[in-house]
Amino acid sequence: MQGFPPSPAQRVTLENWDRPPFNRWSFQHVRELIPTAEVGRGCGPICPLESAERDLGGVVFEAVTGRATTVAELLAETYTDGFLILHEGRVATELYFNGMTPETLHLSQSVAKSLIGTVVGIVIDEGLLDPRAPLTDQVPELAGCGYKGATLDQVLDMRSGVRFTEDYGQPGADISRLEAASGWRSNPDPALPDSVYDLILTLPQERAHGGAFQYRSVETDVLGWVLERATGMRLPELVSQKLWSRLGVEQTASFTVDRAGAALADGGFNATLRDYARFGQAYLQNGFFNGRQLVPEAWVRSCRTGDRSVFGEPYRSQTPNGAYRRKWWVKDTDRGVTMALGVFGQMIYIDPIADLVAVKLSTWPDYLNLDFKLNSLRALEAIAAVLAEGAT
Amino acid sequence: MQGFPPSPAQRVTLENWDRPPFNRWSFQHVRELIPTAEVGRGCGPICPLESAERDLGGVVFEAVTGRATTVAELLAETYTDGFLILHEGRVATELYFNGMTPETLHLSQSVAKSLIGTVVGIVIDEGLLDPRAPLTDQVPELAGCGYKGATLDQVLDMRSGVRFTEDYGQPGADISRLEAASGWRSNPDPALPDSVYDLILTLPQERAHGGAFQYRSVETDVLGWVLERATGMRLPELVSQKLWSRLGVEQTASFTVDRAGAALADGGFNATLRDYARFGQAYLQNGFFNGRQLVPEAWVRSCRTGDRSVFGEPYRSQTPNGAYRRKWWVKDTDRGVTMALGVFGQMIYIDPIADLVAVKLSTWPDYLNLDFKLNSLRALEAIAAVLAEGAT
Repeated sequence: MQGFPPSPAQRVTLENWDRPPFNRWSFQHVRELIPTAEVGRGCGPICPLESAERDLGGVVFEAVTGRATTVAELLAETYTDGFLILHEGRVATELYFNGMTPETLHLSQSVAKSLIGTVVGIVIDEGLLDPRAPLTDQVPELAGCGYKGATLDQVLDMRSGVRFTEDYGQPGADISRLEAASGWRSNPDPALPDSVYDLILTLPQERAHGGAFQYRSVETDVLGWVLERATGMRLPELVSQKLWSRLGVEQTASFTVDRAGAALADGGFNATLRDYARFGQAYLQNGFFNGRQLVPEAWVRSCRTGDRSVFGEPYRSQTPNGAYRRKWWVKDTDRGVTMALGVFGQMIYIDPIADLVAVKLSTWPDYLNLDFKLNSLRALEAIAAVLAEGAT
Repeated sequence: MQGFPPSPAQRVTLENWDRPPFNRWSFQHVRELIPTAEVGRGCGPICPLESAERDLGGVVFEAVTGRATTVAELLAETYTDGFLILHEGRVATELYFNGMTPETLHLSQSVAKSLIGTVVGIVIDEGLLDPRAPLTDQVPELAGCGYKGATLDQVLDMRSGVRFTEDYGQPGADISRLEAASGWRSNPDPALPDSVYDLILTLPQERAHGGAFQYRSVETDVLGWVLERATGMRLPELVSQKLWSRLGVEQTASFTVDRAGAALADGGFNATLRDYARFGQAYLQNGFFNGRQLVPEAWVRSCRTGDRSVFGEPYRSQTPNGAYRRKWWVKDTDRGVTMALGVFGQMIYIDPIADLVAVKLSTWPDYLNLDFKLNSLRALEAIAAVLAEGAT
């Protein structure tokens, strides 16, 4: 978006904004493209992040191609906008690229799912939700679609039997209909659902509830709806009150909202690099952060487990000890390493044994890139090893 | 926007948002309806507003109907959301209604014009703009529309000869085309201009430049374009750098932006009640505020003058000593009382002799309401008199 006005070829629109090269600008300017609602930081003091910075750019790891690669090379090659490492709770590295600053809110795509899952855990702990209860207890309308009979627990682990085709960029896929419904694209057809609520109600059941894990973004949007009904609060306000305002974050965050005012729970969250790190550190510390137990400890510990037997391909090949649990990717259930992941290269990585949290915000040219993902994980493992030794 | 989802009848949309009763919600939630860009507060300290609060609700004035009315009655009758009085630089009254809080950004409609005019004054003072130069020096494209030959000074005083019909709510009026172009409405027709830049270029000349004052919002949008070209900065960033971040405001503000990323200079600004008051106080103090000269003193003083002879009806009847000068309404050129005014009841009122700044943010049911406006002015005069006496 350079020039007054920008030339038509350079213009970032609702049709191109998440595609390269436009996403390099748009992921830091989401509010300029899509209506957004505040997730207030509240008026409490900032929870400081102590600094213990060191240069980790020279740390070397073996890329999936076999090539010896430095962390600095990885960051450049994978379109990094922000990169932060917390080791033993202190900032070991904090880097910004592509115009990003410590104040910039960056879209984190499906990282939002882990955030929403967390709020579900808090609200369950408060007794406002029962994880074993059918979703229709909170949202009776769901009886008219494929979610009839599904429980909160099943949706938390993405194990309902509802059909939701998530083929990114495919015009007919449910994910594309969701993009139009959520306001992420112009709605090309007035007959299509015009809000996320309406879209959910169109989805059929295609297998029994409680089967294998199947990644479907909309399951988190269903959670958002359930949360709103259980608490009587709009989701951005709820996330602020139950979590964001308690983390001692620096900046008010935001969610994109659709034409019915609903936040896109599955991927519309925007926050700063340092504030994502605070959220990760709260998980690393078993939910205790900023002076109190923000997330129930049992919930956090459970998010490091998960049923490997329902974790099918292609995920099992990528992370053989992996699982998916309560909106977190478990990289390794033995080590309890968890990840919040979003398309185009968003990641919060939490390794309790290494006492390390990493946040990487990126704008890959593609929704998914297996090499970028695996190389990023290898880099983080190498960084963890170097920090454990206490030497670069 | 109550309920999950809100019922269709309750839903605030791009078609109804500024109409009653929807505007009572939307003017405090503009970012949830329209894309917005940040006007950063920067990272400097807040310029404190000392408190000297007293109850002014019982102050009585004579309404235009002849009825004795209290300030409290006026505030309730005129759909007030926020009301603040600074007297001798201290907060004499600060009141919130209709869910507004000290942190809430409230749309101020054409108050934005006075803000943009101020930035023009600063940029002229820096030597980047010449007030006597034709607009085409900065934006050559304007030679292809009615703005050919018009100068910056003429546009500042709304005295160009360009046709712009400002009949609020009339589907065919230029103001309605501007609403669609600016993203304030859905664009019903792909053939209509899709950005404010494009809309400006469609406007013809209908009389000589430099004639009588004629209120036309688009003249401020032209200033916005000129400012961008003169400085090479997008307008929200420019307003932040030159003004907002220097005022010691509490909150980052915002502008609505159109599909080309352009801020709506004529009316898309949102800020908190207290921060509007800081802006007003800077004018009261001849541009010196927060420890330095933020706006050139000569500019501020000039904004209290104006050529009464070009100030025609209906304005002259409403304010017989009135004028319009550099995007400020001069209520009384003898007393130097100036006002920034916006439709649906937005006002910053600056009376240097009474040492009083008032801010009133409202959501009237109508664009314009002469009784509401005149009664508000009478109430402020009564408040000024009471404060001058030092007694309620």
